[in-house]
Amino acid sequence: MIRILETKERIIEDNDALAKSTREDLNNRKVFFINLMGSPGCGKTSLLMNTIPCLKQRYKVAVMEADVDSDVDAKTIESLGVKTIQLHSGGLCHMDADMTARGLQFLGLEDLDVVIMENIGNLVCPAEFDTGAHLKAMILSIPEGDDKPLKYPLMFETVDAVLVSKIDAKEVFDFDEKRFENNLRIRNQKAPVFYLSNLNKEGIKAWTDYLINKIEEFRKS
Amino acid sequence: MIRILETKERIIEDNDALAKSTREDLNNRKVFFINLMGSPGCGKTSLLMNTIPCLKQRYKVAVMEADVDSDVDAKTIESLGVKTIQLHSGGLCHMDADMTARGLQFLGLEDLDVVIMENIGNLVCPAEFDTGAHLKAMILSIPEGDDKPLKYPLMFETVDAVLVSKIDAKEVFDFDEKRFENNLRIRNQKAPVFYLSNLNKEGIKAWTDYLINKIEEFRKS
Repeated sequence: MIRILETKERIIEDNDALAKSTREDLNNRKVFFINLMGSPGCGKTSLLMNTIPCLKQRYKVAVMEADVDSDVDAKTIESLGVKTIQLHSGGLCHMDADMTARGLQFLGLEDLDVVIMENIGNLVCPAEFDTGAHLKAMILSIPEGDDKPLKYPLMFETVDAVLVSKIDAKEVFDFDEKRFENNLRIRNQKAPVFYLSNLNKEGIKAWTDYLINKIEEFRKS
Repeated sequence: MIRILETKERIIEDNDALAKSTREDLNNRKVFFINLMGSPGCGKTSLLMNTIPCLKQRYKVAVMEADVDSDVDAKTIESLGVKTIQLHSGGLCHMDADMTARGLQFLGLEDLDVVIMENIGNLVCPAEFDTGAHLKAMILSIPEGDDKPLKYPLMFETVDAVLVSKIDAKEVFDFDEKRFENNLRIRNQKAPVFYLSNLNKEGIKAWTDYLINKIEEFRKS
């Protein structure tokens, strides 16, 4: 049975201050928090289905699924046997620090090592709000095209890692990796790029290795 | 040379009143206005590339390309030889009635029959704002998945027509048309569905026939 929190938006004066305090609380509890973003249908839930079984072997993992409506993704993730809640945004197209903090409280952080939030499918607003996450990752799927860093600058600028999904469908789409990386580097010089397929699992290990490395760095800090 | 308008957001008390007055002005001038929406990379620009050559044979057509940044789409559309302007949203994830009205003024409506606005790639906020359009259409691409009406209810509720694009890639994605239409009909009982491929042009004629029919109805009214 999926628990659903209706987060809605409250007017919070300083999103960044609240995000900072959320992150400090998570630091004290040694809970690593990941904010996963991307367009509708880019493969966020599928990526979690491939990522969590690997993380579960080492860490206590929980997931917050944010959506405008429905709990289809939360039900899918719950089938992996990890603690999962659904956040409803009340029509909003992003999660802010306040909605996230209330989500984390509703989830309960006791005995957790890693929390992953699947943000609402959108390449614009989710990038504007620090949620308190330690790692911001975004997925761009091959069918969306290699020009997206030009059109959605802030998202590509603010993320720590970029995942390019659905590479199994590369044959049928005109996506040029070199053109994509040139466009990406205009926005972001540092973020590593992981090409992967949630269908045939190609590239998943490089991503989970990166993630485990980041989590281990955090736990040692 | 693409002309670019920085629209930004102004606080407008009554979006709907302004949208209504825009629509009345368009009615008086006999200009039919289409608001085209969909996720990033769903194929909005490609659809326009296939739609405009057909409309151009009958009508004087102009296009407003809305984006957070860049003018790549406007340049593509301009190559068709139609009047094209680029609207920059100043970071916003949608076009409202005010930004649209300023766009139409910047475009200039003299001697036009049809204006198409390509909205910012997003399935959430664009659905919330009446822009003054006579017809709201949205594209969902096959790779995005058949569950999207459950997750983005308002978009699917408010549109007059639903286009399902990239059907040429159907073989490599798990998209079930019946499941999709069941999900869609929860949100919208009326909107016709057009399955099409911008790549091999399958289904394009049914869409342009529908559009011409709507434009002719408008011109006779």
